Amino acid sequence: MIDTPSLVDHYCHGVLRTELGLGTFERHLAPGSAPPATGTTFFDTQTGFAVRRWCPPLLGLEAHCPPARYLARRRELGVLETGRRLLRASGIAAYLVDTGPSGDLTGPAELGATGDAAAHEIVRLELLARQVADTSGTVDGFLANLAEAVHGAAACAVAFTSVAGVRGGLAAVPEPPGPGEVRGAAGRWLARRAAGGAVDDPVLLRHLLWVAVGTGRPLQLHVGDRDPGALAGFAAATSGLGTDLVLLHAYPHHRHAARLAADFPHVHADLGPVVARTGARAAAVLAEFLELAPFGKLLFSSRARGLPELHVVAASVFRGALARVLGEWVADGAWSRTDARRVAGLLAEGNARRVYGLGAAA
Amino acid sequence: MIDTPSLVDHYCHGVLRTELGLGTFERHLAPGSAPPATGTTFFDTQTGFAVRRWCPPLLGLEAHCPPARYLARRRELGVLETGRRLLRASGIAAYLVDTGPSGDLTGPAELGATGDAAAHEIVRLELLARQVADTSGTVDGFLANLAEAVHGAAACAVAFTSVAGVRGGLAAVPEPPGPGEVRGAAGRWLARRAAGGAVDDPVLLRHLLWVAVGTGRPLQLHVGDRDPGALAGFAAATSGLGTDLVLLHAYPHHRHAARLAADFPHVHADLGPVVARTGARAAAVLAEFLELAPFGKLLFSSRARGLPELHVVAASVFRGALARVLGEWVADGAWSRTDARRVAGLLAEGNARRVYGLGAAA
Amino acid sequence: MIDTPSLVDHYCHGVLRTELGLGTFERHLAPGSAPPATGTTFFDTQTGFAVRRWCPPLLGLEAHCPPARYLARRRELGVLETGRRLLRASGIAAYLVDTGPSGDLTGPAELGATGDAAAHEIVRLELLARQVADTSGTVDGFLANLAEAVHGAAACAVAFTSVAGVRGGLAAVPEPPGPGEVRGAAGRWLARRAAGGAVDDPVLLRHLLWVAVGTGRPLQLHVGDRDPGALAGFAAATSGLGTDLVLLHAYPHHRHAARLAADFPHVHADLGPVVARTGARAAAVLAEFLELAPFGKLLFSSRARGLPELHVVAASVFRGALARVLGEWVADGAWSRTDARRVAGLLAEGNARRVYGLGAAA
Repeated sequence: MIDTPSLVDHYCHGVLRTELGLGTFERHLAPGSAPPATGTTFFDTQTGFAVRRWCPPLLGLEAHCPPARYLARRRELGVLETGRRLLRASGIAAYLVDTGPSGDLTGPAELGATGDAAAHEIVRLELLARQVADTSGTVDGFLANLAEAVHGAAACAVAFTSVAGVRGGLAAVPEPPGPGEVRGAAGRWLARRAAGGAVDDPVLLRHLLWVAVGTGRPLQLHVGDRDPGALAGFAAATSGLGTDLVLLHAYPHHRHAARLAADFPHVHADLGPVVARTGARAAAVLAEFLELAPFGKLLFSSRARGLPELHVVAASVFRGALARVLGEWVADGAWSRTDARRVAGLLAEGNARRVYGLGAAA
Repeated sequence: MIDTPSLVDHYCHGVLRTELGLGTFERHLAPGSAPPATGTTFFDTQTGFAVRRWCPPLLGLEAHCPPARYLARRRELGVLETGRRLLRASGIAAYLVDTGPSGDLTGPAELGATGDAAAHEIVRLELLARQVADTSGTVDGFLANLAEAVHGAAACAVAFTSVAGVRGGLAAVPEPPGPGEVRGAAGRWLARRAAGGAVDDPVLLRHLLWVAVGTGRPLQLHVGDRDPGALAGFAAATSGLGTDLVLLHAYPHHRHAARLAADFPHVHADLGPVVARTGARAAAVLAEFLELAPFGKLLFSSRARGLPELHVVAASVFRGALARVLGEWVADGAWSRTDARRVAGLLAEGNARRVYGLGAAA
Repeated sequence: MIDTPSLVDHYCHGVLRTELGLGTFERHLAPGSAPPATGTTFFDTQTGFAVRRWCPPLLGLEAHCPPARYLARRRELGVLETGRRLLRASGIAAYLVDTGPSGDLTGPAELGATGDAAAHEIVRLELLARQVADTSGTVDGFLANLAEAVHGAAACAVAFTSVAGVRGGLAAVPEPPGPGEVRGAAGRWLARRAAGGAVDDPVLLRHLLWVAVGTGRPLQLHVGDRDPGALAGFAAATSGLGTDLVLLHAYPHHRHAARLAADFPHVHADLGPVVARTGARAAAVLAEFLELAPFGKLLFSSRARGLPELHVVAASVFRGALARVLGEWVADGAWSRTDARRVAGLLAEGNARRVYGLGAAA
C-alpha cells in the first residue's frame, strides 16, 4: 500500500572485498570490537535474524536457512557477484559513504558501481585532522592547512561527519574556542601525539566542528548512546548560520533526538537506529521517531559496514517498517493515504535530497 | 466500549481572539518560537495531521482536507463561532487555565463561556514574582509582598505552576533556602533587573516554589525534556507536607515521571504529552504512562494554547487512545471491563477533581 | 505456539509466613515503603490488576474478583497451602533467592520445598559487610575478615548482589581503590557507624564490589531508575576478568541496559522489570529489551518479595509476553519458529543456567 520505490542511504560505509568464513562474517554482524560472550553467537541478535530472513532468498536459498549453508552459497557465488546481487536488490538509489578508517572497504565509486547507484563521499573530520597533522610542521602551518583541507573537502564531499565531537566536550562548551585557545591546544596536542595519533583534545575537536560549520555543508554528529539533550547548546549556538546538523545513530535516546529536530529548524535526525540493529522491532522504533519530529526532518540510513547484507537488510527492514506504521495509520483514518505516501517519500529519499543538495531522483 | 463522557483539562491556555491566516495558524501548531525549516511545514507533524483529521468535520468539511480550505472555512464562520463549535464538541467539562504571559488569549471566564464549561485559574509563579518586583521598593518589601501575593493567589487560584523551577536549580538543591540566602539573592536580582525582567535567580526560584508549597495548593512543575529523576530530591523534601506535586509535560522521559508518581504519594504525572503532539502515536505513549504509575496518579491535559483546534484535538486523541489501550486489555482478559471503565474515569476527570478539589462532575 | 515449559527465576526473595489482612497484602503490592496516596489504592496498579487476573483462579475463584473476596479465600486455605498452590502453578523450576534483609521471609530451602523447585542463595554484599563489621575489632581485622567472608560465601552462594553499589559512586570512579584508600575509608566508616549501620562509604562499596569480582561468581548490580550508561566505565574495567555482571531491574532505562549487554561480552540484563510491575504492558517492555541485546544475554526474574502471588504473576505475565512477542514475529515471517522456540528457552532458563552454572534442566 505504502510504497517506497527508491531510497537514499545518507550514512553508510563500503563493503569488504575478500571472501569471508563463518567467524569473520559473524564478527561483522556486531558493530563493536568485542567477541561474542562464551556460549553465545552474534547470529542470535535481531541483526543476525534479519540477515537470515532477507538475504538467503536473494542468493537462491530459503529464508532462515542455517548460517553455514548461507556462507557456503556466498563463497560459491564469490564476493563480487554476491555484492552485486544484494546491493542491486536493495532499492537504494544513492549511497552517502563515510570514507573514514576504511580498512579494505570499497570506496564510494566502487560501491556505487556494484550497486548500480549514485555514490557520494562523506568526509570524517577527525581523520582529516590526523592527516593534516601528519604532514604539517608547525602549529601555525597545521591550523592553516586544516582550514584549507576542510574547505577543500567541502568542495567535493557531500557532508562532514564527526564521531568524537559529541563525547569530546561539545556538550560542556558549545561555542567556538578563541584563536589563542585553539593555538595552545593545537601546540600541546601536536607535541604529545605520535604520527597517526587521533584528535582527542576537546578544544581542537570543537574548533574542527566550527570550521566545518563555516563551510555550510551538512554536519553529521554521532550521538550513539549519549543523551542528545547535551547537544541543545551547540544546536542553539549554530542556529541561523545556514548549516544543517544531522544527529546520527541516537539510540536509546532517539525520541530525544527527534525532539531536538522539532525544536531547531536546522537539526535533523537519522533513522539508522531503526533499521541497523532492531530487526523485527523496526516498526516500533520508527513509530517513536515519528512522535515529535516534523516529517521533513527524518532521514533513512543503513549505517552498514563491511557486509552488503547489512545494506540490503537495512533497506528491507526500513521499507517494511514504513509500510506497516503508515499503513496502520491510514487504516485507522488518522492519516490520509495521500499524506502517508508523501511522508514515506520524504523519509526514504526526499529529505536527504533536500538536506544534502542531491537533486531530484532520476 | 470504554467511554469517557467528560474530561477535566488540568492544564491549558486560552485561545486567540483574532482571525488567522494560514501562516499564523501554522506557527501556532508548534510550541516553540522558531519558524519551520526551509522546505518544510508544521502541518507535516502529528499535530498538523491530527488537526486535519478531527477539526474539518466539526466545521462541515471533510477530514484531511487541505489546510487552505480549512482556514477559508474558519474565516467564513469567524473566530468566535469557530471557537464555540470546536470547544463545545470537545467533551471538556472543566478547564484549568494557566493565565501566564497571555498575549491576547482569552482568560478562564471567556474560555469557559465559549466552551460551555467550568473554568479555573492556575497562577504562574514566575509572573507573580515579576509583577510584585515591578511594584515593590525594597528587598524587605518585595519579600513580604511576594509572600502575601502567593498566599492571596492561593485563595482564588486552583493551582500554582512553575515553568523555570525545574531548570532553575531545583535539581541541584531541593531544600528551601535560608532567610539570609533569600534576602541576598533578592537584593542582587532586584538591583540588576530592568522593569519586567524575569526571575532567573536559582535561590529566588527555589524560595518561590517553597512559598507555594506552604499554601497547600497543588504545584505544577514543567519538566519538559529534562530527566525527572533530578526531581527526586525535591519530591523527597516535600513528602508528607500535604501539598501535591504534578509533573507537567514530561517527554521523552514520561516513564520516569510515571515512576516518580509510583514512588511518592504526593507526586502526580500529567498525560499532556500523550495528546499534545503525538497524534497517531497517542495510544502507545499513554500505554507507557500506564506501566508503573498508579492509576490514581495520572491526569489528562490538552496543553493547548492559542487555537481551539488544539483543545479539541487533545480531547479526541486522548479519548481514542484511552478506548484503544484499555479496550485491548479488556479483550485480552488482562483487565475486567468494570475496572477499565473506572480507570478511564479516573484519568479523564476523577483524579483531577480529587487533586484540585473541584468537586464531582455535574 | 511458543511454549516456555520451565523457568529459572534468577532474582527473587522469600515469602511471608503469616496470615495477611487486606491492608498488609496491599502494601506488599508496591516495592517502596510509602503508603498509597489518600483516595487511591495499590490495587489500582498493573501489579494489582495482574494479581487479580492470575491468582484467584488458582485458588478456585473467578479472575478479577474483588480483593476482599480473594483475601478471605486466602485465609480460608491458610498461608502455607496458598503458597504451595501458587508456587507450584508458576512453572518456576529454580529460585535464586536474595537472602538480604529478610524480615520473616522464607529462606531458599523453604521456598524451594514449598514450590517443589530447586533453590539457591544469592549473597547481598552490603549485608555481609555489615555483619563482618559488627564482629570485627580493628580496621585490619575487618578488611581481612571481609575478604574471607566474601570468598567463603562464593563457595556456596550462586551469585553476589549489590543494592548500593551503583548509586554509591561506582559511576564516578570505576577502578578498584588502592589499599591505603580502602584502609582509610574503612577506618573512618568503622569509627562513625553504630552497630548494624549500613555501608555508605563510596570507597568501601567499590572495594566490596571488586573483592566480589575477584571470586569469579556472577555479580548482580541493582540499577533501578539510574542511567546504566554510568556503568560503562565499570563494565570496561571488569571486561576480560572472567566475572559476569548482571544489570538488575533497570527501568525506565532498560533499553540502555540491553545496549550495554550488546557492547560488553560479560554484561547481562535482567528481564525483571518486564514482569514485576508492568502487567498488561509486559509484552511491549519485553520487546524493547529484544531490540539490541543479544538473545543469549537476557534473563528472566520475578523480583517477587513477600507474596507468592508475585512469583506466580511474574511467571504468568512473562510466559504470556514471550509467547505474544515471539509468536507475532513468527507469524510475520521475521523469525523462524525453530529460532523462536530456542530463544524462548534461552530467556526462560537457558541463559540463567549458563551464567550461574546451574547445570541443565532436570
